[in-house]
Amino acid sequence: MSERDPYAVLKALDITLPVAGAPAAAYVMCAQSGNIVYLSGHLAKQDGKPWVGKLGDTMSTDEGRAAARAVAIDLLGTLHAHLGHLKRLKRIVKVTSLVNSTPDYTEQHLVTNGGSDLFLEVFGQSGRHARSAFGVAQIPLGACLEIELVAEVD
Amino acid sequence: MSERDPYAVLKALDITLPVAGAPAAAYVMCAQSGNIVYLSGHLAKQDGKPWVGKLGDTMSTDEGRAAARAVAIDLLGTLHAHLGHLKRLKRIVKVTSLVNSTPDYTEQHLVTNGGSDLFLEVFGQSGRHARSAFGVAQIPLGACLEIELVAEVD
Amino acid sequence: MSERDPYAVLKALDITLPVAGAPAAAYVMCAQSGNIVYLSGHLAKQDGKPWVGKLGDTMSTDEGRAAARAVAIDLLGTLHAHLGHLKRLKRIVKVTSLVNSTPDYTEQHLVTNGGSDLFLEVFGQSGRHARSAFGVAQIPLGACLEIELVAEVD
Repeated sequence: MSERDPYAVLKALDITLPVAGAPAAAYVMCAQSGNIVYLSGHLAKQDGKPWVGKLGDTMSTDEGRAAARAVAIDLLGTLHAHLGHLKRLKRIVKVTSLVNSTPDYTEQHLVTNGGSDLFLEVFGQSGRHARSAFGVAQIPLGACLEIELVAEVD
Repeated sequence: MSERDPYAVLKALDITLPVAGAPAAAYVMCAQSGNIVYLSGHLAKQDGKPWVGKLGDTMSTDEGRAAARAVAIDLLGTLHAHLGHLKRLKRIVKVTSLVNSTPDYTEQHLVTNGGSDLFLEVFGQSGRHARSAFGVAQIPLGACLEIELVAEVD
Repeated sequence: MSERDPYAVLKALDITLPVAGAPAAAYVMCAQSGNIVYLSGHLAKQDGKPWVGKLGDTMSTDEGRAAARAVAIDLLGTLHAHLGHLKRLKRIVKVTSLVNSTPDYTEQHLVTNGGSDLFLEVFGQSGRHARSAFGVAQIPLGACLEIELVAEVD
């Protein structure tokens, strides 16, 4: 359980959680088994549309980091919708970050920090997670980034 | 627990489950911990051989969707072999779909629907899963698609 | 629980476990939920530095297999540090192996065997795992390989 009020942090950061997105097909944005919640890969979006780009080509690491922060906010929106209240989150357990990359781009970890840092700000120690970040050939709709997540809830 | 008989659906769809494949090395096709089963990434096959191809180059989205359906059938074969009876499946929890893609191909989600739709047909609501789909640079043996899965069983 | 003494096997193989690495950002090298431990993606290293290379271009399959064995040793180091004693490991449940690959390289499974084989040597049947291996466009810091792991502990 987080020692801080995640909503107070979000307000201090001037972040408004989005209404959780609806999947476009025969899957769901999150699925719970026992007290583990699996969140689907969330695509980076800007102004409600896919945030298109490829790191090492059309996007800089700083832009990628901003995209990761945006995806993390969407993931929080999905968790809030699923749990009713983020206080029910015990821990972010695992984050997997898929970065749309050229064959030469090697800063996927810096991009992903944009999401990891936000989880730490919002949840404190409960936001610390195991993590993998790597470069993929492409992402649905050309999005620059896709992040999925495993969380423990009460 | 599915509200429908998965074998009746499979029969209606004229699908015969394959004998579960054997891994080629020091790993297993599925591993259970508690009531969670992790299935290894299953490669797309055609006529028992790797279904070779790359989306955006040598394969169309429709062909990819057919490959995803074929992998889903193989995953069901592995689940059937592991569980003895698919009625023991409580839910497909998470699907991860790795699509062999050129750097420009962006329809990994449509390809993956070929598998997601079959799970929904066979299991109903119990078949709805969290999901990630993305494009990878290559896949063992040149297969066009690899899908792994997490399921909850009783 | 392994039927063999993993430390005796490591000694017989002349393997010294490394001091577990520290993450470079707001994440941790492993996170436990219940009796499941998720290990972060560990990058291949050589002489303490990222083992840079791309399969199908600057590295051979045999070199990749050696890198996978090196990553597996680092994963064991992290497990040892987290658990206090490897006897507490009940099973390696799932291994995901991300191989830095050209668009044409198709031997990710052979590379990954370097890690899978070591787990089998060290833990016996408890080391057998579900597995996915595939080729990615790039990896942080240009490493040739990244492996993450899910384990069950007592």
